[in-house]
Amino acid sequence: MQLYSYFRSSAAWRVRIALAYKGLRAELHPVHLLREGGEQYAPAYRMLNPLGVVPTLIEDSRVFTQSLAILEYLEDRYPEPALLPRDPVERAWVRALALTIACDIHPLNNLRVLRYLEMTLGVGSAEREAWYRHWVTQGLKALEIETARPGWRGPFALDSAPTFADVCLIPQLYNARRFGVDLQSFPTLVAIEQACLALPAFAATAPEHQPDAPREPTP
Amino acid sequence: MQLYSYFRSSAAWRVRIALAYKGLRAELHPVHLLREGGEQYAPAYRMLNPLGVVPTLIEDSRVFTQSLAILEYLEDRYPEPALLPRDPVERAWVRALALTIACDIHPLNNLRVLRYLEMTLGVGSAEREAWYRHWVTQGLKALEIETARPGWRGPFALDSAPTFADVCLIPQLYNARRFGVDLQSFPTLVAIEQACLALPAFAATAPEHQPDAPREPTP
Repeated sequence: MQLYSYFRSSAAWRVRIALAYKGLRAELHPVHLLREGGEQYAPAYRMLNPLGVVPTLIEDSRVFTQSLAILEYLEDRYPEPALLPRDPVERAWVRALALTIACDIHPLNNLRVLRYLEMTLGVGSAEREAWYRHWVTQGLKALEIETARPGWRGPFALDSAPTFADVCLIPQLYNARRFGVDLQSFPTLVAIEQACLALPAFAATAPEHQPDAPREPTP
Repeated sequence: MQLYSYFRSSAAWRVRIALAYKGLRAELHPVHLLREGGEQYAPAYRMLNPLGVVPTLIEDSRVFTQSLAILEYLEDRYPEPALLPRDPVERAWVRALALTIACDIHPLNNLRVLRYLEMTLGVGSAEREAWYRHWVTQGLKALEIETARPGWRGPFALDSAPTFADVCLIPQLYNARRFGVDLQSFPTLVAIEQACLALPAFAATAPEHQPDAPREPTP
């Protein structure tokens, strides 16, 4: 397998976590989202991924895009260890949490959107950061309510094993911190994060451990 | 089953299509996204849907949120007629198309975002419409490339039967038209739309046939 990834992309990190958790190996191809106007827009990459986003996974010449579709594919093909529960109601709940992040938080705050706000609409950096914090906070509030439900035992979103919900949550919290979002109101989410980061599949796949991460911290 | 829906919400329409296609009935509860500051923010509705968005589906007192999670749940519980193919590679492709709409087009253009642009950032209506058209066009371009692949037979995105891809595409094209997006560059998508709208599950669930649709056309 080959994974086109950017160290700081939370969508790419989701796939790195799932691969690692399932013990699958993929050769990593870094796609630098800023260099040369964005390597994701290079024609050769767009042959694989017409939208020009990361990640893209390749297995046996088959091309897979969209991080959640890739997670579902890995679950279909390599069901153990599972990242989805078996019960349809629990599966729906886990997927809803993952989609709250993938649809209602992340798309509003990724690079191409922040750049459009800056370049096309002339929105200043303070207002862009407020925009970022607004959507993250709205989404995390809902996730805190969902996870801190009566009877939650932890340590993961759905109790004793990580699922798609955790796979999406950890990169989102990492990004939220980067943008200075105050996480004090989200104790359950932070507790889940601690449990996840104790697992190598989450910790070893973090942005700073990627081959394309800069050696010095960047702003 | 009970479905909390807004006639013009494309996420709610996805669920209405899936229910109708599978021959399932749900009692409809309209949630007016504009009236009284947005009925989706009423505390009683937020008990069901903490993020304050539509749709929400209820079955046997169980609450389901996020349209794609609801589609997956319906597929798990009521597999026939199927809206996902059986082959894992085809499933991944169908889900990727659905997610391109659900993650990379729709979230940027829904009401809460357009209102934030207007109210908080003071973005004027011409620039908001350009914003809308930009993200729709980017996404539809990628979808046209994906669907107009070599060997495509039609009439649906994945050939002979509708899938999640079509379920997400039809409401998105409807919305694109509402905002005056030129669809001439997307002949494959428009052909798929025609095939879908010949099916009652797609046509009869359209916004204008909803009980909460205004009798007179609104701007």
